[in-house]
Amino acid sequence: MFGSIFKNLREKAPLIHNITNFVTANDCANILIAAGASPIMANDPEEVFEITSICAALNINIGTLNKNLIPSMLIAGRRANELNHPLVLDPVGAGASEWRTKTAIRLLEEIPFSLIRGNISEIKAIALGSSSTKGVEADRGDRVSEENLEEEISFAKSLAKKLGAVVAITGEIDIVADEKRAYCIRNGNSMMAAVSGTGCQLSALIAAFLAANPDRILEAGAAAVSAMGLAGEIAYRRLNPPDGNASYRNYLIDALYHLTPEELERGAKYEIR
Amino acid sequence: MFGSIFKNLREKAPLIHNITNFVTANDCANILIAAGASPIMANDPEEVFEITSICAALNINIGTLNKNLIPSMLIAGRRANELNHPLVLDPVGAGASEWRTKTAIRLLEEIPFSLIRGNISEIKAIALGSSSTKGVEADRGDRVSEENLEEEISFAKSLAKKLGAVVAITGEIDIVADEKRAYCIRNGNSMMAAVSGTGCQLSALIAAFLAANPDRILEAGAAAVSAMGLAGEIAYRRLNPPDGNASYRNYLIDALYHLTPEELERGAKYEIR
Amino acid sequence: MFGSIFKNLREKAPLIHNITNFVTANDCANILIAAGASPIMANDPEEVFEITSICAALNINIGTLNKNLIPSMLIAGRRANELNHPLVLDPVGAGASEWRTKTAIRLLEEIPFSLIRGNISEIKAIALGSSSTKGVEADRGDRVSEENLEEEISFAKSLAKKLGAVVAITGEIDIVADEKRAYCIRNGNSMMAAVSGTGCQLSALIAAFLAANPDRILEAGAAAVSAMGLAGEIAYRRLNPPDGNASYRNYLIDALYHLTPEELERGAKYEIR
Repeated sequence: MFGSIFKNLREKAPLIHNITNFVTANDCANILIAAGASPIMANDPEEVFEITSICAALNINIGTLNKNLIPSMLIAGRRANELNHPLVLDPVGAGASEWRTKTAIRLLEEIPFSLIRGNISEIKAIALGSSSTKGVEADRGDRVSEENLEEEISFAKSLAKKLGAVVAITGEIDIVADEKRAYCIRNGNSMMAAVSGTGCQLSALIAAFLAANPDRILEAGAAAVSAMGLAGEIAYRRLNPPDGNASYRNYLIDALYHLTPEELERGAKYEIR
Repeated sequence: MFGSIFKNLREKAPLIHNITNFVTANDCANILIAAGASPIMANDPEEVFEITSICAALNINIGTLNKNLIPSMLIAGRRANELNHPLVLDPVGAGASEWRTKTAIRLLEEIPFSLIRGNISEIKAIALGSSSTKGVEADRGDRVSEENLEEEISFAKSLAKKLGAVVAITGEIDIVADEKRAYCIRNGNSMMAAVSGTGCQLSALIAAFLAANPDRILEAGAAAVSAMGLAGEIAYRRLNPPDGNASYRNYLIDALYHLTPEELERGAKYEIR
Repeated sequence: MFGSIFKNLREKAPLIHNITNFVTANDCANILIAAGASPIMANDPEEVFEITSICAALNINIGTLNKNLIPSMLIAGRRANELNHPLVLDPVGAGASEWRTKTAIRLLEEIPFSLIRGNISEIKAIALGSSSTKGVEADRGDRVSEENLEEEISFAKSLAKKLGAVVAITGEIDIVADEKRAYCIRNGNSMMAAVSGTGCQLSALIAAFLAANPDRILEAGAAAVSAMGLAGEIAYRRLNPPDGNASYRNYLIDALYHLTPEELERGAKYEIR
């Protein structure tokens, strides 16, 4: 099924509007192209209404949030919603500051997002209003593992119900859940955490998968997570001894560039719970 | 001739002022260094007058335009003009929003640019005030090809006359024209479109070529377009099976780093019409 | 000794707050991860107090300075100082505009930095209020060499005394000095100057070394400079004929990713004067 979802993306080549951070914007743009989509980054309130109108999905990322971006996020978000475009929120670093957490929560209250993707710390910060995030990475004591998987799935489902959105919690094991079903995805490689912005890239990629499959948000989100993880596996096998996180960053995008729907269909490792 | 133009760039090593977008700024900086120039990115109205004064050319790119950048673009543009520095405009995404198109047109009205570079959609948006751009890429139905080449050359020449600037329309076939002559350049590789920001990089590169050859704007612009295309060809030949758009991005800059004036002289493919 | 300093960094994995430019932010993030630290970039005055509070060091870089960033730099700087966090200033392009030079000097007056790192032009601009910087690179006629080394060491020591901070002047020979002692470091490769932002990366790296060794600012700063230079040497040896500055950029970060404390201990080339 993930294969046909990815095929739709390659065929439709949707234009994705990203209101995102300046640290990883270039990688987000290149991974969108690698997957067959087209990126546009536009932040000014003067134009985001129009820009999002010509796109097929909107990806909002608060990685380098500043006050001036919030009106743009709201304008674009409301417009994308009017047009029934899929809407993705990446609450980067939620929990790291009260203002960031509150802004993420405010965005969720004012815009009906289709899917929220973060690590477990970020997602919990939103759910609980807590503030114990270790910067933009998940806390070590707060990871999804086989031990707490059942519990985290329940958490994801109930948050999805509360928010009316698919919740994607990514880490060693990824959970993509709506209120009824959760995809547990076991693709990926631990070295992905050594590249700044693989989470941001994934959120952009999810927006592209959703844009091409707007009636299957849960499945398309899960397919995107699986595709990114599979690219991480392929990139890892390509590493030569002197290659580190910089080469791995390139190999990841390269792997997605070559990934076919058939390979995703075969390589996806998931169960539905 | 392109060889001697490129040689001037390598010898003069000009400093280039870029007021540009945050998505591709890093690649613009590295391609300028690869070509033998030095980059400086400075955006604040408090300093752009002074910064542009110590540089040899100014490159203005509206890729992630925001309101606060416009005064800086005007101050720097007027100062660069006073000093007879070559001035390049990259109207990224013109046509994608009315505000973006209008801002590009306003910049053209207030600053005497030496050269404007864009894809055919962006350049037509400026010429016609139309708004059908597909984000930051050229529309598929609106490309320069052998079929419409004659017509597009006429369009480029008449726009060049109207704007009093060289017009560079880049795509499968590149046209670099003033009101009398047009260089049609057939260097390049289609994979360049799979890297975010090759257009931005080219505009920065053009600014460097112009800075080192301020009395030959048309020829220097054509030489830069040919050099970028040739680098794209060299980079393409270097691809290994697992390499995708991320590796290709690196190979492009690498190729320009090693490109010699002699190789450009030999490898340039163009006709003057 | 540099080995044990680096070992502390790998073991403590400190979170580093960067208020930095948009051109090289991604490379700064990835080199911090390569060295074993975690990056967070956060610029808004609403959150920098909190963000810097959860970090172990603060790195301020004025590469794409704008007016709105200055309040954030001051709030974060004061808070980091209250918490005794190491504080690094990278006065990118000081001397290129009066406003940039003055802002760097103002930051130094209002915040007790632990270490200031720049090229010789930038550091002299701060010391002398001069304005002859060639953009963001050192002037050719103004480099640290064997001929003027003694003189530059005296300059660095007296500036360190005046500022009450360690002064790191990086170039062909690097000087890291407090008022009494200067490390002269001869690691590195000239190709590092062909990559945009190796200076920015080094400043971020210094912040990480200092965060893990807050009681040995001088030595930790010298160790970071030596580690970056050693990575530059390793990356250079890895170059294949078609590799240029883009591949070298990746190899540099890769080299740091694999560098061990033992290799740094063995490979460090320095004398104390």
